[in-house]
Amino acid sequence: MTKNSCEITPGSIGVFDSGLGGLTVLKELYKAMPGENFIYLGDTARLPYGSKSSQTIARYAQQNMEFLSHLGVKAIVVACNSASSTILQHQRFNDLPLYNVIIPGAKKALSASRTGRIGVLGTRATVFQQAYVKTIKKLNNAAEVFQQACPLLVPLVEEGWDLDPLTNLVIYRYLSQIMRQEVDTLILGCTHYPVLKSSISNVVGPDVAIIDSAVTVAEEIFTDMQNGVLAKVEAKQPGNITLLTTDQPTGFEIIAERLLKPVKINCIEQVDLTF
Amino acid sequence: MTKNSCEITPGSIGVFDSGLGGLTVLKELYKAMPGENFIYLGDTARLPYGSKSSQTIARYAQQNMEFLSHLGVKAIVVACNSASSTILQHQRFNDLPLYNVIIPGAKKALSASRTGRIGVLGTRATVFQQAYVKTIKKLNNAAEVFQQACPLLVPLVEEGWDLDPLTNLVIYRYLSQIMRQEVDTLILGCTHYPVLKSSISNVVGPDVAIIDSAVTVAEEIFTDMQNGVLAKVEAKQPGNITLLTTDQPTGFEIIAERLLKPVKINCIEQVDLTF
Repeated sequence: MTKNSCEITPGSIGVFDSGLGGLTVLKELYKAMPGENFIYLGDTARLPYGSKSSQTIARYAQQNMEFLSHLGVKAIVVACNSASSTILQHQRFNDLPLYNVIIPGAKKALSASRTGRIGVLGTRATVFQQAYVKTIKKLNNAAEVFQQACPLLVPLVEEGWDLDPLTNLVIYRYLSQIMRQEVDTLILGCTHYPVLKSSISNVVGPDVAIIDSAVTVAEEIFTDMQNGVLAKVEAKQPGNITLLTTDQPTGFEIIAERLLKPVKINCIEQVDLTF
Repeated sequence: MTKNSCEITPGSIGVFDSGLGGLTVLKELYKAMPGENFIYLGDTARLPYGSKSSQTIARYAQQNMEFLSHLGVKAIVVACNSASSTILQHQRFNDLPLYNVIIPGAKKALSASRTGRIGVLGTRATVFQQAYVKTIKKLNNAAEVFQQACPLLVPLVEEGWDLDPLTNLVIYRYLSQIMRQEVDTLILGCTHYPVLKSSISNVVGPDVAIIDSAVTVAEEIFTDMQNGVLAKVEAKQPGNITLLTTDQPTGFEIIAERLLKPVKINCIEQVDLTF
């Protein structure tokens, strides 16, 4: 940590992603539990994860979780599909409750689908590991799942071209094969993709349900708090949001504000995971 | 190193890049000096560099150079513009000759330009650091340099869409502002971009000289060998090419073969820089 370090509230909810895409998840968590304090770790010095091997992603995820655990968080949310793919079998990390974005997304897709034909858009890593395919099949073996890796979508969002006609062309190209499979439900299997929801919706049409796990993860954690599985803050005032990045935060602030809007960040700071 | 480690020839030329784009430089080095042995280090576990801060890139570059230096290389070539931008003032590393791709590209552009109006395409990091602007101005203060960051070009090349009409549209978008400045010379300021040379050429037309520093760096090193500044191998048979990657090499082999064609890799292996 640098000298002017952000104040870390013990018992915060720790959230991490390779970069800033996971802020779409943080936004839903904050909306559902506005009294809670959140620490968001974006591993911007090593982003993206989606093009890397599962062994490397698992190593990075482990370091991030160790770091958040040392900050005294009460739970860890893996707000990154590529990283979630590597920890699916774990429900705890160092005795802390561990939440991923794959299982809630898979459950929501199954409840939304009438035909059981489900499409998944994701990074190369998530598609290669068949994280959604395996999870959905485990819940309902009759479902049919069709995947498509979309490596250009994250760079397009980060370029700020999310409403650009060029992005529509790229989405159309990626979706053409999956749509031929007549899926009625489409999972946005990367936490950056909700930014492109309206463009994707324009391509697939109104009859295809678009699933973004952020809301479902937030509901799951909220329910765990109601049931006493996870301690909740009884404060009346809004909680703090602390954004920690492994590369310098300059330049990321604009993207972060755009992704979180209208939710505000209280403190941003670069941290060293000593890698 | 893993058990089945590649055989490392002492006195090889060490080359590194964030990923595989620098293989376009290795290819020219090998063509100019086919008797030499080369060790190429692609930092695929932390790619890309071009979207990261100069401090982080400088730290990664340092670790890569330390690693190559421990392998007993006789010289280090920084085959990455973003990393070159952080070491421009250094001509040696640990007593080894150190070559970057910025200075040769800048010199070549100045000699190619009739009007002194030069365009530069690069990553966000290279553009932010104004590496070409500063280097060209130092050589000829009358020259005018216009930059454009092109963050989508590397992902497009890695998606294999280099001959795709969509890529042409993206190039056209990026180039429109620079072309309005009536540049007569355009520097490909990222070692991935030579793969897009024909598409870029189609957009700018035949009157704009396109500069790729790979050939010039190779000429510089060849000249240093002729002048006895750098030892040369007197072998008649072709040298070895060893490709080391920090992430698993699976999946990278296909891109590597495409970028190096017809030059062949002798051995590929994952290495641990212990970060």
